[in-house]
Amino acid sequence: MAAIDLNCDLGESFGIWALGDDATMLPLVTSANIACGFHAGDARTLLITCQRAVDHGVRIGAQVSYRDLAGFGRRFIDVAPDELTADVLYQIGALDGLARVAGDRVRYVKPHGALYNAAVHHEEQAAAVVDAVAQYDRNLPILGLPGSALLRLAEEAGLRTVTEAFADRAYTAQGALVSRREPGAVLSDATEIAARAYTMVTTHQVVAEDETVLDLHPESLCVHGDTPGAVEIAAKIREKFTAAGVVIAPFT
Amino acid sequence: MAAIDLNCDLGESFGIWALGDDATMLPLVTSANIACGFHAGDARTLLITCQRAVDHGVRIGAQVSYRDLAGFGRRFIDVAPDELTADVLYQIGALDGLARVAGDRVRYVKPHGALYNAAVHHEEQAAAVVDAVAQYDRNLPILGLPGSALLRLAEEAGLRTVTEAFADRAYTAQGALVSRREPGAVLSDATEIAARAYTMVTTHQVVAEDETVLDLHPESLCVHGDTPGAVEIAAKIREKFTAAGVVIAPFT
Amino acid sequence: MAAIDLNCDLGESFGIWALGDDATMLPLVTSANIACGFHAGDARTLLITCQRAVDHGVRIGAQVSYRDLAGFGRRFIDVAPDELTADVLYQIGALDGLARVAGDRVRYVKPHGALYNAAVHHEEQAAAVVDAVAQYDRNLPILGLPGSALLRLAEEAGLRTVTEAFADRAYTAQGALVSRREPGAVLSDATEIAARAYTMVTTHQVVAEDETVLDLHPESLCVHGDTPGAVEIAAKIREKFTAAGVVIAPFT
Amino acid sequence: MAAIDLNCDLGESFGIWALGDDATMLPLVTSANIACGFHAGDARTLLITCQRAVDHGVRIGAQVSYRDLAGFGRRFIDVAPDELTADVLYQIGALDGLARVAGDRVRYVKPHGALYNAAVHHEEQAAAVVDAVAQYDRNLPILGLPGSALLRLAEEAGLRTVTEAFADRAYTAQGALVSRREPGAVLSDATEIAARAYTMVTTHQVVAEDETVLDLHPESLCVHGDTPGAVEIAAKIREKFTAAGVVIAPFT
Repeated sequence: MAAIDLNCDLGESFGIWALGDDATMLPLVTSANIACGFHAGDARTLLITCQRAVDHGVRIGAQVSYRDLAGFGRRFIDVAPDELTADVLYQIGALDGLARVAGDRVRYVKPHGALYNAAVHHEEQAAAVVDAVAQYDRNLPILGLPGSALLRLAEEAGLRTVTEAFADRAYTAQGALVSRREPGAVLSDATEIAARAYTMVTTHQVVAEDETVLDLHPESLCVHGDTPGAVEIAAKIREKFTAAGVVIAPFT
Repeated sequence: MAAIDLNCDLGESFGIWALGDDATMLPLVTSANIACGFHAGDARTLLITCQRAVDHGVRIGAQVSYRDLAGFGRRFIDVAPDELTADVLYQIGALDGLARVAGDRVRYVKPHGALYNAAVHHEEQAAAVVDAVAQYDRNLPILGLPGSALLRLAEEAGLRTVTEAFADRAYTAQGALVSRREPGAVLSDATEIAARAYTMVTTHQVVAEDETVLDLHPESLCVHGDTPGAVEIAAKIREKFTAAGVVIAPFT
Repeated sequence: MAAIDLNCDLGESFGIWALGDDATMLPLVTSANIACGFHAGDARTLLITCQRAVDHGVRIGAQVSYRDLAGFGRRFIDVAPDELTADVLYQIGALDGLARVAGDRVRYVKPHGALYNAAVHHEEQAAAVVDAVAQYDRNLPILGLPGSALLRLAEEAGLRTVTEAFADRAYTAQGALVSRREPGAVLSDATEIAARAYTMVTTHQVVAEDETVLDLHPESLCVHGDTPGAVEIAAKIREKFTAAGVVIAPFT
Repeated sequence: MAAIDLNCDLGESFGIWALGDDATMLPLVTSANIACGFHAGDARTLLITCQRAVDHGVRIGAQVSYRDLAGFGRRFIDVAPDELTADVLYQIGALDGLARVAGDRVRYVKPHGALYNAAVHHEEQAAAVVDAVAQYDRNLPILGLPGSALLRLAEEAGLRTVTEAFADRAYTAQGALVSRREPGAVLSDATEIAARAYTMVTTHQVVAEDETVLDLHPESLCVHGDTPGAVEIAAKIREKFTAAGVVIAPFT
């Protein structure tokens, strides 16, 4: 029987500014990529988000980022590798402390935004993230894009890697995500996305924008938390999977 | 035989900006109050400082602060207690992660600057700090001023408290520190300070500004790291104590 | 014929995080207290808000604040007066630059949040704000609470002062605002608030919480932008005033 | 008779952290690239630096930067052009306000650090900076590297451009600066640098690392403020030029 994890970015409010509907989204997913304060997430928000995740049996992941509140971590920053390693260590530790107080601990690491994108091809920054995770806890899995420098280097370092797929995004023939700037890059119909997610998980295939059929073996599906209709999409995927007997469970 | 701990603020550089002579000061003290990023301390500086502390057998303490880089944590901020608790948890966790990577862990907590001063009398903020430490690890001691709300509440919560004295500061008849704005509040002669430190530790007394003799039983002496002559003062204290057979050792 | 200004806090989004419905609120008011980046407002948001204000003929005011994004400027900070003066100058200049590019300029200054509250009674900080305005441009009015240290010191310095009233807040017998923590401190019914606003403006009186009748001669009414129903309240006030022949116009 | 401007980065302290010897350097130069708070410079430091510049008849330039205190503006950030334009406008306005209070105004704009380097070849970011200056004040010159996209686009926009040369840096055959990571990229001997500066200004030539002779017609020489020996280098240049009858004067 097929099984899959659903991961979602959470804890991305900051001070007075709210983002996402965390309270509604949390019960729908199994892994929470919780911000660590560098792109979003004041400490109180993060603590509450950890507590809610524990309440719902959702796994806590450290969503590490460039230090860039003004840009929400979505702008590439040319950080030196040793600084990036320290920044990632700092963030994992901070969230791990809050997670422990909430009754669990950080179970995995997933880079956020521009760092996630950079870690696909930027060898030095990908290595810096891997280095941080390896130094912090060699048992922490890294969640990322199949084929990325990040996951390749993590495997070479002997870390566990977990691949994810995006049911609401178009893929290129090479298995990369079509840029959000291209038309048709992002799907919005919840039923269509749920069907696509189901195909990905059960057939291990997805049809790229040029009709190429790609092989995919994701252990996790990423559900976006801050897009319109995010909650509905997550609910539809859960409904579809449950009806079809696909087990939704954390990868850890 | 008398024994005493020497504690000092360290890791207070930020990015390009250096502060203090950490490399020279670290071997002279036994407890390092290492910044946690809220008033000072970029992640790379903190990691290096933790590594140096471990290299010298110096205990790592989390020097938690208000979130205020521009003010170096020296300005009172009227933070709500639940936010302060979360901010302190975040900081302890962040430093603890770096300390673990360096081969040790956070061994105690000491509030910095304006938070230190507020915690002397501000019941709600003192309780918020105690609450954070108790939630994080009930075995972590809190280092502070004798008679402060912070240490009283920590004791009531069943936490270990450690008191410190200031050999370079004048005391009021009530045992408080004379404000830095008053003339004579801060001593600068290294030999005089070392002699005063020796008297404090061996006689458990200090003469206040009005000649009142105060009782003191500090487990630690605070050596300031960012004042001119700081290294010389620490060296003189160490020289004096060693010559007189006072053991300089961590309180933990 | 009676005339009154309506002022509202605007431009308080930051990066990805939106706050308030500025596009809808702007046409309803006559003076926009635009954030200056210290408690809210990234530069792009501020520029767009200035442009919109100019498009609608709304006057631009500099809503100066403590440097505290995490606390949205709502936490008292014990800033030294010379630092506060420089911080206020920096903020006025930054917004004035954006306002000039948008085709107008900063027309008045109003402190935000905790600085607004501190300036009611904290003589040193109130003086620091007045000092900044006087240095920047002696023709800039300061908008504030009648009876505050801020307005008293501004008058003593020869600056123009403008008083405001709050139609949605209960008043004490002394003319202060009842703390938000008290029951009944904040009114929420739009029709009731509009009626109260009308009474304030036409009779120059308001009934305090203990039934005392207070005299008020506000030149401006403050409409809150980030509370639920804010737009409806502003619309009701405008409707009521327009129907009754009260002119809504900028005080400048 | 030859004439040249000497420009230097100033006002780069932040809060408790000091950087550079501004008080000694200011009287030696004619143009002060003053930080604007995004990579360095708290408001009080900036105001004092502006006042000192005015006292010494030194021209005030806005040293605009990416928003990156932790990286001192030395890390490329992939900021969107409209955000960069707004960020630059905000910074120019903020410094201009302080400069006016000090008795002068911002006389030119020079990008700092990684933004300076990006603006050499990154068309979109260079255009965003030019756009900000053109919107703020079409009479403000931009100071930059000859051959850069920044100066080319500024000229195309009808702005005045001012080129600078670096007497302490090795040049490639193409007229670019040799990367700091290469051996021999940075000269440190003050007498040698002063001689090189003199040759640049009087012969309009410099010998590149491969012995190619390059033509240079700088209106300004950049003197670094935060390198060891910076003050001595500036003093030597001034001594050499004064003795040889080269006039040191602002380009504005």
